[in-house]
Amino acid sequence: MSAPGLIPSTGVFRFAARTRHLQPSAIREILKVAESPEVISFAGGLPAPDLFPVTEIAEAAAAVLREAGPAALQYGVSEGHPVLREWIVGHLARTLGLACRTDQVLVVQGSQQGLDLVAKVLIDPGDLILTENPAYLGALQAFRAYEAQVVGLESDAEGLLPEALEHWLRTQSVRPKLLYLTPNFQNPTGTCLAAERRRAVVALAAQHGLPVLEDDPYGALRYSGAPAPALATLAEAGGCLYLGTFSKVLAPGLRVAWLVTPDRALHEKLVTAKQAADLHTSTFTQRVVTAAVRPPGFLDAHVGRLIATYRQRRDAMIAALERHFPSGCTWTRPDGGLFLWVTVPPSLDTQSLLPAALAAGVAYVPGAPFWVDRPVHNTLRLNFSHATPERIETGIRRLGAVLHAALG
Amino acid sequence: MSAPGLIPSTGVFRFAARTRHLQPSAIREILKVAESPEVISFAGGLPAPDLFPVTEIAEAAAAVLREAGPAALQYGVSEGHPVLREWIVGHLARTLGLACRTDQVLVVQGSQQGLDLVAKVLIDPGDLILTENPAYLGALQAFRAYEAQVVGLESDAEGLLPEALEHWLRTQSVRPKLLYLTPNFQNPTGTCLAAERRRAVVALAAQHGLPVLEDDPYGALRYSGAPAPALATLAEAGGCLYLGTFSKVLAPGLRVAWLVTPDRALHEKLVTAKQAADLHTSTFTQRVVTAAVRPPGFLDAHVGRLIATYRQRRDAMIAALERHFPSGCTWTRPDGGLFLWVTVPPSLDTQSLLPAALAAGVAYVPGAPFWVDRPVHNTLRLNFSHATPERIETGIRRLGAVLHAALG
Repeated sequence: MSAPGLIPSTGVFRFAARTRHLQPSAIREILKVAESPEVISFAGGLPAPDLFPVTEIAEAAAAVLREAGPAALQYGVSEGHPVLREWIVGHLARTLGLACRTDQVLVVQGSQQGLDLVAKVLIDPGDLILTENPAYLGALQAFRAYEAQVVGLESDAEGLLPEALEHWLRTQSVRPKLLYLTPNFQNPTGTCLAAERRRAVVALAAQHGLPVLEDDPYGALRYSGAPAPALATLAEAGGCLYLGTFSKVLAPGLRVAWLVTPDRALHEKLVTAKQAADLHTSTFTQRVVTAAVRPPGFLDAHVGRLIATYRQRRDAMIAALERHFPSGCTWTRPDGGLFLWVTVPPSLDTQSLLPAALAAGVAYVPGAPFWVDRPVHNTLRLNFSHATPERIETGIRRLGAVLHAALG
Repeated sequence: MSAPGLIPSTGVFRFAARTRHLQPSAIREILKVAESPEVISFAGGLPAPDLFPVTEIAEAAAAVLREAGPAALQYGVSEGHPVLREWIVGHLARTLGLACRTDQVLVVQGSQQGLDLVAKVLIDPGDLILTENPAYLGALQAFRAYEAQVVGLESDAEGLLPEALEHWLRTQSVRPKLLYLTPNFQNPTGTCLAAERRRAVVALAAQHGLPVLEDDPYGALRYSGAPAPALATLAEAGGCLYLGTFSKVLAPGLRVAWLVTPDRALHEKLVTAKQAADLHTSTFTQRVVTAAVRPPGFLDAHVGRLIATYRQRRDAMIAALERHFPSGCTWTRPDGGLFLWVTVPPSLDTQSLLPAALAAGVAYVPGAPFWVDRPVHNTLRLNFSHATPERIETGIRRLGAVLHAALG
């Protein structure tokens, strides 16, 4: 078998790839299985596609090519499309009261690239990154690819415990490189960092010279309760980077997000890292987003629709959990975002239960991979944004039956 | 000055960024200056925007959103859109006689990301990468970001000298991790690796267990001469990765390229690295490209138009160089691509001449940064694809006058 030009699949040639620190996501494998139409999946982190503003994006794409023409298809600067960066500045001032300048904004290829670039610029092998626990898996993956050692600090239903951070900083001699937090409707738990904790955490970080990366993909999706100030607005000395995205409020497939960096030298390094990584984010998608969000724009109205729908789905899931889950199970009651977090009785291992759940026609993500070091096996993550209330009811009923059966 | 939420620009907070190995591109700074409308710029690496298929891409974008709807805006798999990957397999078989399978193709965010991911997966700090000299600057930047040490091997008008490679491999005890080559119309020189050298290089690489990365952004843009076989078609044991892109034949602003990896384990690592870097390339741009290239498609006809126009511009530039450049200057005569490479008399330094050239209304890129180690200061790169023949004539006349003046 040696057709001319054949690239053998068996790797006759031996590549000496680096083996450590690049681990495929556990979720990705589950998502593949959960794709079957018979399975009601609460496993993905997917926004509801039926709510995507397809018509508006089609109009924006047409307008961009009609008006900007070739400029919408040419190479662009690594920093991102200037008009979009300017809009982001106004948006942050309006929605968060966060004052920043256009030259502090870097457009990135989804939040994931923001995490990647921050790690690439800040992390030497062995460096420490502190975070809440459990933590966002994509961030763990991005950080570990640069051989960061991630430390998960004790967290509860109100987010990271400031006293855990304080204790760590007081008792450990190693200086960590970064504190990574998702203060709003965290993935996986759905919890928010309480307002007074935000102040305490930011003050501790400033006192110890610890940079903070605030990851805020879900902040705009609030269904109840009052917002707490963004960490970046509290970090008066400028020690906080802010990561925002259009993925959850517009469409994830466009892959447009942004990173605000207070420090000029650090911003320049991130721009250089972005240039080395992929030159720049697609000129076309950046301009489509710009056309979609600029006045008159439809973003506010669209987010209003998302909130109304996702609120209903969250309520449906919590009601279904109360109806169908065995006693001894607890769950978070998120005020926003896409996820809630379930703790089942400690006798159960959610990883081992997954085949039974899939067989029963329901999928979730076992909680273990989200725990930074010691996995807690009786936890799981549920997405409530993707399925309709009817399918949520059916899916949670199925999962409740699996849990009842497992508990005997 | 401490408005609430102000992010200070002065960096009161001290970030401890890694300082080494992330150097901004010298070209990027020149391009900023060269943007003035009075300057005729041969500095960029830009395809001609007046040839971008704007109407066809607008039709493709509309069709994608009409037909796929929300699926064109949802998260996708890290490997890339399956239909596009399948098309790429057929395209490589048809155009290069390169046989590969869909599961060996990874869609990336422009070739630059292909370079970045290969380095991320293969390179440990201090590892060696061999390449031609001068070499593509974006690759040097990507590789050095992972602290690779790049070694430039002697090259001439027919590309890398196999005997230089052979001598290096025979006399050095350190085993390099990668041989990086742009065999077709290389950036910056415009030269091709001769057919018999390709065979020799691939044989040497196989013999020494040295993986090859073949970067082929310009191969389809051939204006004269006959093509030589792709390295990947010669590497029968599968030691060659192939990097292709839509940037030069469709539009760079879409940021869609692909990497073919013969080895399954290495491919899987690259997919994982892609996932950690940005989850996946934009679902929307991938589908737009797919709609644009699939039958009936317009890519072949479009590339035909590009070739006709760029051939004319190449001829115009070579004719103008012959008319206006002082004796003692030499240049390559590329059979394709976007660039040619000029050597001026050794008494001149093209970096020092740049201000005079810009004052005379013409821009180029000094050759020094393209040299891997010891810069050769009397070289420069000219792009011939972007300007019209008339502007090429005017620009080269201006540059010729600057050179004449400098030579006294």
